[in-house]
Amino acid sequence: MHACIIAVGSELLTPFRVDTNSLAITERLNTIGYAVRLKTIVGDTVDELAQVVSSALVWADLIVLTGGLGPTEDDVTRDAVARVLQVPLEEDRAVVERIRARFARRGMTMPDINRRQAMVPRGATLLDNANGTAPGLWIERGRTAIVLLPGPPREMTSMLDAVIAERLAPKSGGAGLFRRVVKITGRTESDVDQQAQPIYGAWTSRAIPISTTILAMLGQIELHLTARAESRASADAALDAAVAELRTALGDAVYSVDGRPLEAVVGDLLRARRATIAVAESCTGGLLASRLTDVPGSSEYVERGAVCYSNRAKTEWLGVPEALLATHGAVSEPVARAMADGALARSEAGVAVAVTGIAGPAGGMPDKPVGMVCFGWAMRGLATEVETVHFPGDRAAVRALTVRHALEGILIRLDSHPTGG
Amino acid sequence: MHACIIAVGSELLTPFRVDTNSLAITERLNTIGYAVRLKTIVGDTVDELAQVVSSALVWADLIVLTGGLGPTEDDVTRDAVARVLQVPLEEDRAVVERIRARFARRGMTMPDINRRQAMVPRGATLLDNANGTAPGLWIERGRTAIVLLPGPPREMTSMLDAVIAERLAPKSGGAGLFRRVVKITGRTESDVDQQAQPIYGAWTSRAIPISTTILAMLGQIELHLTARAESRASADAALDAAVAELRTALGDAVYSVDGRPLEAVVGDLLRARRATIAVAESCTGGLLASRLTDVPGSSEYVERGAVCYSNRAKTEWLGVPEALLATHGAVSEPVARAMADGALARSEAGVAVAVTGIAGPAGGMPDKPVGMVCFGWAMRGLATEVETVHFPGDRAAVRALTVRHALEGILIRLDSHPTGG
Repeated sequence: MHACIIAVGSELLTPFRVDTNSLAITERLNTIGYAVRLKTIVGDTVDELAQVVSSALVWADLIVLTGGLGPTEDDVTRDAVARVLQVPLEEDRAVVERIRARFARRGMTMPDINRRQAMVPRGATLLDNANGTAPGLWIERGRTAIVLLPGPPREMTSMLDAVIAERLAPKSGGAGLFRRVVKITGRTESDVDQQAQPIYGAWTSRAIPISTTILAMLGQIELHLTARAESRASADAALDAAVAELRTALGDAVYSVDGRPLEAVVGDLLRARRATIAVAESCTGGLLASRLTDVPGSSEYVERGAVCYSNRAKTEWLGVPEALLATHGAVSEPVARAMADGALARSEAGVAVAVTGIAGPAGGMPDKPVGMVCFGWAMRGLATEVETVHFPGDRAAVRALTVRHALEGILIRLDSHPTGG
Repeated sequence: MHACIIAVGSELLTPFRVDTNSLAITERLNTIGYAVRLKTIVGDTVDELAQVVSSALVWADLIVLTGGLGPTEDDVTRDAVARVLQVPLEEDRAVVERIRARFARRGMTMPDINRRQAMVPRGATLLDNANGTAPGLWIERGRTAIVLLPGPPREMTSMLDAVIAERLAPKSGGAGLFRRVVKITGRTESDVDQQAQPIYGAWTSRAIPISTTILAMLGQIELHLTARAESRASADAALDAAVAELRTALGDAVYSVDGRPLEAVVGDLLRARRATIAVAESCTGGLLASRLTDVPGSSEYVERGAVCYSNRAKTEWLGVPEALLATHGAVSEPVARAMADGALARSEAGVAVAVTGIAGPAGGMPDKPVGMVCFGWAMRGLATEVETVHFPGDRAAVRALTVRHALEGILIRLDSHPTGG
């Protein structure tokens, strides 16, 4: 089954906005067997939108339009679809009353322009919008289903879920594309691909074929496995077997097979051993603590974090000796070690990680260039370890790579010392 | 002049990748007067790509294609364009030699498949690629110019800049779209629009017309002004006058007219008065410090940050009395005040901001629901101020809105107390 996604809105044709609704739509459509063959972004112009819809009608089994259902004259999706289907737009009294009631619940009078949102192409079915005034629309024409959804993601996604459950999934009979994301740490992309390619290369010719894509970005490597199967159960069995093969080949480098990000995997390990963590950061300026605390429930295991841009803060909060800073400089392994040790000694945490480095663009020196970062990892009862890494890229890249390396370092040490911390 | 952007690549039709090349392309095309009317994303399928190119040829003055110029069989852009134009693909010997030499410089032999990258539709002009093996192509057909560029941004952008400077800008005679982004703080969208609409509504009928879009997202409001003018100089004059009108009407609410983000504006104010800042955060877990230190050079004015998830950290690092925590709870105005005061007293900073709140999804209570955040702002020599705000949305939204409000609070206080800090 072939789908086309059309995002409507002139703001999506400026340099400032990108259509991201289509990612969530694609993910959901894939699970019920629709392959997205084309995505189009078009402005608030009825002629151009009609042209795009009309071209898609020729080949698509499903056309999903998002946006352009608001109350203003810029909102032309209803008009364009009605024009293509050559049906009139008619005001739906029940919708007018529903919108009026929605305004009334907030003590407001419905502005007259909102009546536009009650205009329905003849033959269309209304889709409830629990989070906004614009109802969605479902229209069938020949073999093609056309779905009109509002642009705001909060309104769009819940309506799409309902359409899929009630209308599209029953048609697809359970067949679909099913995915697993295998996340890998501590290896280079070519290293992973060299080892994994002979394995996943064989999957495409199995009874339930699995295709594999390798994605690498800012030090993160992911293998995306996609199985085409008649049911979720058979896809799950095939994907489980495939993931197990990768685990055998890549060992501890595989840290997540269920979508959990690195910070959540680290958090779950800390929680499992009832340990808490303290972080001491300089060049990442809070980004490491922020990543750890992105995870709901992280207050259970994040004890504290020190953002020590100044040397004075390193000395006062972490007990880094002034002499050490004077002798080796703030960006050095002895200081990273002292920061990690200090974070452990001066908190209740069982695990501490410290980073100090030069994120750039300024501040680089011949012996300490931009991108050089020193790490310290400390766990109660174990010797503190330090490491120096040189990262490529601009300030944002160096900071992101530093955070990733720090998290990977915690993961490796928690894995290899199951009793520490 | 109307442009169409076509991004080619099956990975752009998965839930994992979004086309961002088109944002950079749009920005550059707008400055030479091209309006992007349609963006399309299509997979590595020659039939479908040919169909899309062929539809665009009907109306577009310019078609920019990115991606699909690699050496593999998946790379079909050259084939699709040749098919639409009904011209043969011919191997260009000079290109083969250039690619071969590029490999040789790295001590490698050119794989035979790279010859595909030397296939050129008859009549096309080659565009140099300084950063990769795939040359770009320029083809004119009737009134339409077709530009083929590689997908990797590093290769694409420099080639596009050359095409614009050498081929497209001379045609446009200097006319183009020129933009300003006015960023606004501390107001609601409807409030800003009500006040600004009568002003910007009049701009569309001026000699140099300016169109205005209001964008609001996670508490950030921006007015995007777009002038269509014959030259940058006349656009600048018109835009400067328009921005001045907005400043007069909206006063201090306008904090940036040159694209600087809020954290950079705060940083520049701190730098200007040679003040440093300390932050004390609980629910944002380092995100506030991280935003401040995103800015290059922020080590000049960010003194330190405390991420105090535990009460013990609040007491040890910031001197928050245990009795205060026991009486009022960690999420309370007295604790926010004590955190801000403590951050100031225990550092060299002249300005301190503290946040403590409930980001969710768990941890809410009837009297302290999820989204409730208490702020404290302290400046040397001035009375410390506190405030409680209830933010909507999930954990990520509450954290983002909290950081924005904290930064806005610093900005307002630095503006209104020019001698403090």
